[in-house]
Amino acid sequence: MNETISIKGGVDIQTSLVLDKFKTALSGVERVVSSRSTLPILNNILIKADKSGVEVVATDLELGVKFFLGGKVEKEGVITVPGKTLINLVNNLHGDTVVLTGKGNVLEVVCGETKATINGMSAEDYPVIPQVEGGKQVKLKTEVLEEILSAVDFSVSRDESRPVLTGVYLVSKEGKLTAAATDSYRLGEIIVDVNLGEEFGVVIPSRTLQELRRIMGEEEEIELRVDENQVMFVLPQASIVSRIIEGEYPPYKQIIPAQHTVSVEFDIQEMVDALKTASIFSLEGSNSVKLNVRVGGEIEITSESSQLGNFLAKVPAKVGGEPTEISFNARYLLDGLNSFDTIKCVMELSGKTVAGVFRPVGAENRLYIVMPLRS
Amino acid sequence: MNETISIKGGVDIQTSLVLDKFKTALSGVERVVSSRSTLPILNNILIKADKSGVEVVATDLELGVKFFLGGKVEKEGVITVPGKTLINLVNNLHGDTVVLTGKGNVLEVVCGETKATINGMSAEDYPVIPQVEGGKQVKLKTEVLEEILSAVDFSVSRDESRPVLTGVYLVSKEGKLTAAATDSYRLGEIIVDVNLGEEFGVVIPSRTLQELRRIMGEEEEIELRVDENQVMFVLPQASIVSRIIEGEYPPYKQIIPAQHTVSVEFDIQEMVDALKTASIFSLEGSNSVKLNVRVGGEIEITSESSQLGNFLAKVPAKVGGEPTEISFNARYLLDGLNSFDTIKCVMELSGKTVAGVFRPVGAENRLYIVMPLRS
Repeated sequence: MNETISIKGGVDIQTSLVLDKFKTALSGVERVVSSRSTLPILNNILIKADKSGVEVVATDLELGVKFFLGGKVEKEGVITVPGKTLINLVNNLHGDTVVLTGKGNVLEVVCGETKATINGMSAEDYPVIPQVEGGKQVKLKTEVLEEILSAVDFSVSRDESRPVLTGVYLVSKEGKLTAAATDSYRLGEIIVDVNLGEEFGVVIPSRTLQELRRIMGEEEEIELRVDENQVMFVLPQASIVSRIIEGEYPPYKQIIPAQHTVSVEFDIQEMVDALKTASIFSLEGSNSVKLNVRVGGEIEITSESSQLGNFLAKVPAKVGGEPTEISFNARYLLDGLNSFDTIKCVMELSGKTVAGVFRPVGAENRLYIVMPLRS
Repeated sequence: MNETISIKGGVDIQTSLVLDKFKTALSGVERVVSSRSTLPILNNILIKADKSGVEVVATDLELGVKFFLGGKVEKEGVITVPGKTLINLVNNLHGDTVVLTGKGNVLEVVCGETKATINGMSAEDYPVIPQVEGGKQVKLKTEVLEEILSAVDFSVSRDESRPVLTGVYLVSKEGKLTAAATDSYRLGEIIVDVNLGEEFGVVIPSRTLQELRRIMGEEEEIELRVDENQVMFVLPQASIVSRIIEGEYPPYKQIIPAQHTVSVEFDIQEMVDALKTASIFSLEGSNSVKLNVRVGGEIEITSESSQLGNFLAKVPAKVGGEPTEISFNARYLLDGLNSFDTIKCVMELSGKTVAGVFRPVGAENRLYIVMPLRS
């Protein structure tokens, strides 16, 4: 059930808004509105005024963001104007109230002694932002959403050649909510005890989730609506609609090593410091660092560049099992370790060719896996 | 009188330093050491240890920076290593003390359980940083130096085709210190009542002054040494040596309009807000805004872009003289107005083709001139 933009009272529009609210709405849509789309209308922001108030809308076709502002509406109507120009203008205004008056495709913005007119385009050409009205509807605590996104979002793939990996896999099943992301070099997973009352499994574009995190405020709950092709996040002041990424998410549980030959517990901050420094000396662009797990109770971190020199640091550790040497991309290790909120971490290894498993101590619902490099 | 680098006790070196001091010194030379000079040795930082302590040196041939650190020197010597690698490494170290040991061209850096070796190059190939020992020597209060640099430095030219305009003109004469800078579109000048005891007039590269401002600390005074070709700034913990830009500085006093037909006093912040917003609507890249000075007591600021739309703001003003319309590059006006520390500013105009003169009210030793645009 898609909503079409209704143009009441022609394209003329007149409304007065609280300036600060307008600024918040514009900053909320800022990263969605393009500045050089080949489809010029996508460079525009749509402003719609009707008796329920004013809406500010932007879309890049994959993702649509809508902000609801109150505002006193004198004339109902709809207009679109270049987003960057409007945002630059409004961010530079000072005062309490801003009056918008649209005539034809020209928007007049008045604030105190300042008056600008912006050349716009007809709202008739603006793409319809679909709404998700049917499908499954659940409510999610904002803090849970923030927790799962910060745990996995950084692991999504930036490579568009496998679209399904560019999203976060969100699964509601048997009273638990699971989120996972992988770029096939590393994988992050989190499982939370949240019974949403509905079961589903969707892959949501990382970009959508990043915009959602930018917009999410102090509200307690966010409504999530899921249908066949789309998800919609409904906040009190805004909504985001996004396509779901099609395709089967890979059966990632299979690649989590079931056993290990050595378990190593270390201080996360100490390891982060050592890895950051080691990566300076790794072969250009490779970020390769070697971890030498010694039974005596330490991890030796080494790296080497024939050009620059070499590096060695020792991190104390509780080691249980066989001594092991393994190479990793330091960047991947750092991403994972930095995402943990705990003091300590356990690393489980099974030789130099098997993925390493990282578990933050005290947050057993999280898991991070990194593939080794050939050394 | 140039100092050559003396290599005592061969190239071996051993010293222990306070880590924080070492970090400060490296950050002080960071922007001078290149990362991709065609002369590879210029990508390096030189470390010299002798009985007076440790020196950290970087140069790009035009500009040399030297930091003096104390430190316990076990073996005197000198070594050069790639600057970016050393800086990245040291910034990631944690602890109180760092031990540097040089053997041949390899530097070993040890800090706690961390050990790195960096491949360096022979210090024999490192360019000599000249010292200014003779010439004129004066002492300058740091706060005066900061005041004059922030007043004029932004007006220097970025265009290398007229080298003399890429520097700040510093003149000590008749018990006054004058600084001026211009890119031929605008000019800034400040005159302070400081009797340095020596008279001189030099053009100092803007880049040198920017490095000086980065390095200047809380010290009360800085020593300035000027000879035929070079200037040297001596701080307690560091020194900067730079070439002087050759060539006659243009006789800029001649272009300061002696009279005006209208004088306009306005609030700087109000004008800044209006100009910033107006420049959004000026013709692409031109930054052109029009100022319409009305005898009634306001300045109308307008701008227009056939593509985007147009803009109008009104700034209250005390107007004395003839009504005038004039166009300026908003960027130039903003640079000058933002550099003023006062609440009010007086603008003096003499028609649309004569430069506008801006004087901050209450800081009569400052002057800013902007050429008009053809409108």
